[in-house]
Amino acid sequence: MTTKARTGMRRAVCDANVALSRRGLAPLTFGNASAIDHERGLVVIKPSGVAFDKLTPDAMVVTDLDGKVVEGKLRPSSDLPTHLALYRAFGAIGGVVHAHSHYATAWAQAAREIPCLGTTHADHFHGPVPVTATLSAPETANEYEANTGHAIVRRFATLDPITTPAVLVAGHASFAWGVTVAQAVDTMTVLEAVARLALDTLALNPGAKPISQTLLDKRYRREHGADAYSAAEKR
Amino acid sequence: MTTKARTGMRRAVCDANVALSRRGLAPLTFGNASAIDHERGLVVIKPSGVAFDKLTPDAMVVTDLDGKVVEGKLRPSSDLPTHLALYRAFGAIGGVVHAHSHYATAWAQAAREIPCLGTTHADHFHGPVPVTATLSAPETANEYEANTGHAIVRRFATLDPITTPAVLVAGHASFAWGVTVAQAVDTMTVLEAVARLALDTLALNPGAKPISQTLLDKRYRREHGADAYSAAEKR
Amino acid sequence: MTTKARTGMRRAVCDANVALSRRGLAPLTFGNASAIDHERGLVVIKPSGVAFDKLTPDAMVVTDLDGKVVEGKLRPSSDLPTHLALYRAFGAIGGVVHAHSHYATAWAQAAREIPCLGTTHADHFHGPVPVTATLSAPETANEYEANTGHAIVRRFATLDPITTPAVLVAGHASFAWGVTVAQAVDTMTVLEAVARLALDTLALNPGAKPISQTLLDKRYRREHGADAYSAAEKR
Amino acid sequence: MTTKARTGMRRAVCDANVALSRRGLAPLTFGNASAIDHERGLVVIKPSGVAFDKLTPDAMVVTDLDGKVVEGKLRPSSDLPTHLALYRAFGAIGGVVHAHSHYATAWAQAAREIPCLGTTHADHFHGPVPVTATLSAPETANEYEANTGHAIVRRFATLDPITTPAVLVAGHASFAWGVTVAQAVDTMTVLEAVARLALDTLALNPGAKPISQTLLDKRYRREHGADAYSAAEKR
Repeated sequence: MTTKARTGMRRAVCDANVALSRRGLAPLTFGNASAIDHERGLVVIKPSGVAFDKLTPDAMVVTDLDGKVVEGKLRPSSDLPTHLALYRAFGAIGGVVHAHSHYATAWAQAAREIPCLGTTHADHFHGPVPVTATLSAPETANEYEANTGHAIVRRFATLDPITTPAVLVAGHASFAWGVTVAQAVDTMTVLEAVARLALDTLALNPGAKPISQTLLDKRYRREHGADAYSAAEKR
Repeated sequence: MTTKARTGMRRAVCDANVALSRRGLAPLTFGNASAIDHERGLVVIKPSGVAFDKLTPDAMVVTDLDGKVVEGKLRPSSDLPTHLALYRAFGAIGGVVHAHSHYATAWAQAAREIPCLGTTHADHFHGPVPVTATLSAPETANEYEANTGHAIVRRFATLDPITTPAVLVAGHASFAWGVTVAQAVDTMTVLEAVARLALDTLALNPGAKPISQTLLDKRYRREHGADAYSAAEKR
Repeated sequence: MTTKARTGMRRAVCDANVALSRRGLAPLTFGNASAIDHERGLVVIKPSGVAFDKLTPDAMVVTDLDGKVVEGKLRPSSDLPTHLALYRAFGAIGGVVHAHSHYATAWAQAAREIPCLGTTHADHFHGPVPVTATLSAPETANEYEANTGHAIVRRFATLDPITTPAVLVAGHASFAWGVTVAQAVDTMTVLEAVARLALDTLALNPGAKPISQTLLDKRYRREHGADAYSAAEKR
Repeated sequence: MTTKARTGMRRAVCDANVALSRRGLAPLTFGNASAIDHERGLVVIKPSGVAFDKLTPDAMVVTDLDGKVVEGKLRPSSDLPTHLALYRAFGAIGGVVHAHSHYATAWAQAAREIPCLGTTHADHFHGPVPVTATLSAPETANEYEANTGHAIVRRFATLDPITTPAVLVAGHASFAWGVTVAQAVDTMTVLEAVARLALDTLALNPGAKPISQTLLDKRYRREHGADAYSAAEKR
């Protein structure tokens, strides 16, 4: 990675962290974002112990895929091992965000996956937003953050992280990702809106059914892939 | 249509799109507005792929009633065929808006019509806000947007689109319309408030009954038609 | 009433209307405020058809207790007959406000009185906030606004309008009042907060019980009357 | 206490009161904050009857542990006896806040403790947020504010006020505390977020279970104490 490329990554990760805060996705300042250079095996992540409004690109921490700090004077976010587990398992993703945004966190605490109840959801996720299994006591007591990542990866054994770019961690909160870290922030923004919609939908109709597979496919493909003819971000 | 008239329509449609966004009715930027010149059979609609804060009157797209672009360099909104179906069926309307505003979308996802539970609703809608049937698989797979319009039109076989100026599309979101596109935006604003009121009313009293036909008539006619003596927009 | 006194009333009523809007109590611009000079039998009220942000003291309408316009070029609010009925029945009040604020309106639509579930409520209302009976068809069809006032007055046959300074009108919205019109606005502000609290309290515990009469008396008297030693507005 | 130290306390207490209001935790202006100098037995508290936006450090009232005013021209907050009871019982705390913030108050009115349903909660409270017993009629009628404090202290007979730094008072609202009054405000901010999360979690899953003791310990200790390696305020 050239100095210039690294400067760009630092800026992108800094911007993503600030965006989490500005969009109201990181209440109580719970939240962190990272990006990866898969080729060189380097990750840029938010430092621990710096408030969102004090973040600068220079404060970002660069680590290798084992979490060893390569550049930076501050400690990396304590959630780094979860990010690393996702990068190791999902080769196609370039950025990860974690936050305790209100509605997604309520679903995570309820340990329910978010069913696809409408086209807003289908335009962004090609199916429900899954929830992980609860960690066992040993998984919690030791290497908790890495084990959180492993629980996510296990949940995706039969799921595609590109078409399902987010997850709820039971009893905790959500992670989202994307080809870029900016896309990961956008996905978390959508996740929060979709989680809120599903909550009120079920309040109105506890037996509300997911939309049909045909409509799910139609909407998702209208936005994504070779046959896309709409653009969710700017319809 | 003279150049001047068309300039006015472009401005009105641009303003309506911007208003959807500014009033918080288009979360995730889901939303589009259009207007029609019935005499000349020309429709002005938001272009696809332009963010709300970049919209200008010049960017609006002009099409005929078959959806053929008559003026403009950008593609029209992918929801254009739904707008066209409404214009063909409802001769008295001059503007249509579509958005995924939170509360109306929750009702649409719940596939429940919004009952008229109070005078706020009755001042603007002369009865419940209806919900369409779910599209069949073939209707979804082919000409989805046009079929969405047809489902709305079928739902209005026995309803007056002037006194019931909005609809919920099951599993999707809402459409609203009016004599002008500005009025359509105002109707969607009311729809969102009424949807939120009805949600919390049913939370407090799941058996809440619609108001009487007498009160519905009284309030609606106080605001609309020959005997109107109040003005909902500026009481 | 001297010219100067009348100028003061016009300003107070104008300010109260503007406050309803600024505090978010008048969504969709549903709302109006008035004040009375009992001695001279003159009422000052918001004009019909003027947006809140265009209101000036000069635009206020002065009427007698029969609703006859005494001063002003504009029509009085269409809800004037309700205000008049309250002034005729409640000699101790000097101002009335009406609005369709979200949470109080949800309770009104649910046709449930708001039970006194906590001290926030007890500090301002010495008991539940009552709900009127539903108007009969003839009461609705003729002199609807005056009959709304009569339904409120009947509901207060055994209640004190000073210690219970607000009411829910079933299927409609709320009215609040006070010794001054500014106090009426403050009461409606409290009503909205209390209505929201009670909604979420019952969501958490559908069987939540009202606080004891002892606590209700203690808190209410801490704030009001001869033994008051606290001040709700500025603790 | 030197003059300089007292000036610092006055400023800290004034700032805490203003923060309650600015963070939206004191709707209807219900709220007050205090700090203690345990060594000298002096308490600094908000005066009664002064609006938040008029507060200055000089307006703060200084009292002894019996509530006798030592310095200041204004009356202390009417809730002072509750604060004093907490300071007498909890020797390790330096500041107390009281407010009627919406979600915590809804839980207090529902008379339910807030279970620890997720890591957001566990990062700040080492167990559920408890609720007091209801005061008896005599306790309510006489020395109500002091008895409120005694009810809290009784509830903490088997709880550690440092690891459980807040309480719900049944039918009333919440109190929070900390080593400093600024920390007490932060704790109330967290309490409000956690109360809102738990409300929506139970709406989605009425049988939602608290997280495991292992996870509760892990998360709490990650943030607090000798083994802490994360920092909730600035992750």
